[in-house]
Amino acid sequence: MSYILSLKCRECGREYEPLKLAVCSNCFAPLDVTYDLKNLKLRRESFNDRERNLWRYRELLPLKEDKYIVNLGAGYTPLIKGERIEEKLNFNHIYIKNDSVNPTFSFKDRPAGIAVSKALELGDKVVGCASTGNLAGSVAAHAAKANVPCYVLVPFNIEPAKISQIIAYGARILALKGNYDDANRLAVLAAEELGWNIVNVTSRPYYVEGSKTIAFEVCEQLNWELPDHIIIPVASGALLCSIYRGFKQFMDLDLVKGTMPTLHGAQALGCSPVAQAFKEGRNFIIPIENPNTIATSIAIGDPGDGIYVNRIVRETGGIVEAISDEEIVNSIKLLASTEGIFSEPAGGVVIGTLKKLIEEGKVKKGERVVCCITGNGLKASELISEKRGNWYVIEPNLNSLKNIVLGLGNGKG
Amino acid sequence: MSYILSLKCRECGREYEPLKLAVCSNCFAPLDVTYDLKNLKLRRESFNDRERNLWRYRELLPLKEDKYIVNLGAGYTPLIKGERIEEKLNFNHIYIKNDSVNPTFSFKDRPAGIAVSKALELGDKVVGCASTGNLAGSVAAHAAKANVPCYVLVPFNIEPAKISQIIAYGARILALKGNYDDANRLAVLAAEELGWNIVNVTSRPYYVEGSKTIAFEVCEQLNWELPDHIIIPVASGALLCSIYRGFKQFMDLDLVKGTMPTLHGAQALGCSPVAQAFKEGRNFIIPIENPNTIATSIAIGDPGDGIYVNRIVRETGGIVEAISDEEIVNSIKLLASTEGIFSEPAGGVVIGTLKKLIEEGKVKKGERVVCCITGNGLKASELISEKRGNWYVIEPNLNSLKNIVLGLGNGKG
Repeated sequence: MSYILSLKCRECGREYEPLKLAVCSNCFAPLDVTYDLKNLKLRRESFNDRERNLWRYRELLPLKEDKYIVNLGAGYTPLIKGERIEEKLNFNHIYIKNDSVNPTFSFKDRPAGIAVSKALELGDKVVGCASTGNLAGSVAAHAAKANVPCYVLVPFNIEPAKISQIIAYGARILALKGNYDDANRLAVLAAEELGWNIVNVTSRPYYVEGSKTIAFEVCEQLNWELPDHIIIPVASGALLCSIYRGFKQFMDLDLVKGTMPTLHGAQALGCSPVAQAFKEGRNFIIPIENPNTIATSIAIGDPGDGIYVNRIVRETGGIVEAISDEEIVNSIKLLASTEGIFSEPAGGVVIGTLKKLIEEGKVKKGERVVCCITGNGLKASELISEKRGNWYVIEPNLNSLKNIVLGLGNGKG
Repeated sequence: MSYILSLKCRECGREYEPLKLAVCSNCFAPLDVTYDLKNLKLRRESFNDRERNLWRYRELLPLKEDKYIVNLGAGYTPLIKGERIEEKLNFNHIYIKNDSVNPTFSFKDRPAGIAVSKALELGDKVVGCASTGNLAGSVAAHAAKANVPCYVLVPFNIEPAKISQIIAYGARILALKGNYDDANRLAVLAAEELGWNIVNVTSRPYYVEGSKTIAFEVCEQLNWELPDHIIIPVASGALLCSIYRGFKQFMDLDLVKGTMPTLHGAQALGCSPVAQAFKEGRNFIIPIENPNTIATSIAIGDPGDGIYVNRIVRETGGIVEAISDEEIVNSIKLLASTEGIFSEPAGGVVIGTLKKLIEEGKVKKGERVVCCITGNGLKASELISEKRGNWYVIEPNLNSLKNIVLGLGNGKG
């Protein structure tokens, strides 16, 4: 059962019954779910026999009744020790949290799984979302399993692979002539006017709870220890805030000892309002009108949780970095060609930030650094395949093969 | 440690030391790995604390020394009870073995993981494969983790998503002007001439061992019981034969009780030499010169294990079915829109066969049917996205949205 207590305003502290409420009606700031941690007795052994997905943290998730759970088996994704990338970067404790193997192939199965379940608990009959593509796929899949209608609002120019996935799951796609921020604004209106549960709007306080399970899993997978650093892509900023809360809850429950990890944010240079504010020491975000980056999944020009990201990053001693498109592609290839993990551009942003942290000495040998790989490279494969490096067309005969291979130098086994 | 004993000819029974040998030098038939099952004491409890990937079955895998293991974490993929697809098909025990969430997003991580490891153990310095795309991605990723050069031979018209994945992993792609069977023939020559370990040729007896872990996992996940039926896509036929051996080994070891499940083969109508031979009662395969189906990953016109597939299927009371391209797409959508599992066409072939088995009464209510979903829909997303069903372009305002949604009928939440 859940130990949910209330929704609490992140700014003014006002508390509410945990019902259908997205922001504080007093000051319009975000609401966070609180839990009765004092009365919750969880020990490490409590988890021994639990299923290996995000629902293993049932007490710390905001759904009241089990019967509304929509479970695609998301979460408990691998935490890989990156021995080959460590060699390449001359660093010694790199861990890859690989969310590309979630059921719909991104971390969004975490918040979407919680939010679609919560929408059912709240009695809603239609679900939806505003999305750059990953969330849309995930909400569509969960809606399919739950057998409820689903509408997703996306920019009309999202990647074909993401479109195909959403179509297959059976959701209706409203493709906006505009960008993500336009989709988000329209989703707010649609939720009000049509009574839809737009999961990342209507149920936002519950929705964002899903992602903290990354922090829980990392602790478990590091044998109940905290990492020293964690690098997280920043789109709306909700993911980083959620992971922070996750570490804090496990610390408050005494499941892990030590100090809060240093959280680092990673953005794409072509849409980096949070990194800009961080570097200029501002406590407000200047929205980007026209994001321009290949990292479309994190191209949010007006990130709702941007200021909170910067608060947390400063508090924990981290940085927010902005990575160029060229460096994103190089970083995708670096991760793939060392660890066999194929990431979408958001992961390239994270690996790019890792490289900068190492180069600038902001992470030290002996410290453990976790990189959050949040989505699957197959979703944005055009970026890699259009250049066709290492691609050699040959006739189906041995001479043609040998001509190419011997020219390349290392054909002899 | 491994309990490997020998390589044994499937036809004449001659045994060999388990070294670098692909076929019987007596009769050219395939070789199967044998294990010292008599001296192997495995109990169900033996597996309790083992890692959740295919290496948990270490004793029954053909690698002698642990130090050569290349482990990307493949295997132990989810077995999902398909409650929603059961409703749709009016059947009651459908299980989906979801290999789309393997590290490189297909079941090929199983044989490739074993074979690349074995290539290292055999002392080979260059690995490669002939492939329709999935195996190439998997061998490339394992070669990346192992830091050995990799050449893949593929038909030049494979899907862009698969190409991008292979490029990212850093393998060299030899793109043949020809089909898979041409690539396979050339790979045999390249292995001989250049000393490469073409994993699905040079190390074939070891390579095919990886896939039997699907059978092991299914038994474990069904709480140490055998399913009644299992539906398996047939390309070369090696997968079905391997799964059969897996069930047999677990039965021989007394880890599961009962009778061998009924194995069913599934092919695409546009490349169905095994299904044709099955239907005509032939004990030989007539190769298909020019495969013509959207299910490219299983479009092998001259399947090496085709005759063995038909032997096993007949012995266990199954069928081999051929599914049209239209039905493949419908079946992909059926699975995605009920269970939130997005499969490539090979999975559509399996679900199409499931439908036929139910319609024709060849599976009975109460019997448990496992469907092997072997690859990820993102790898062949063009098939779904090009038709753009449920895709509505709108202006970024509420009126435009309402015009579409209210026209569709169920906009009110």
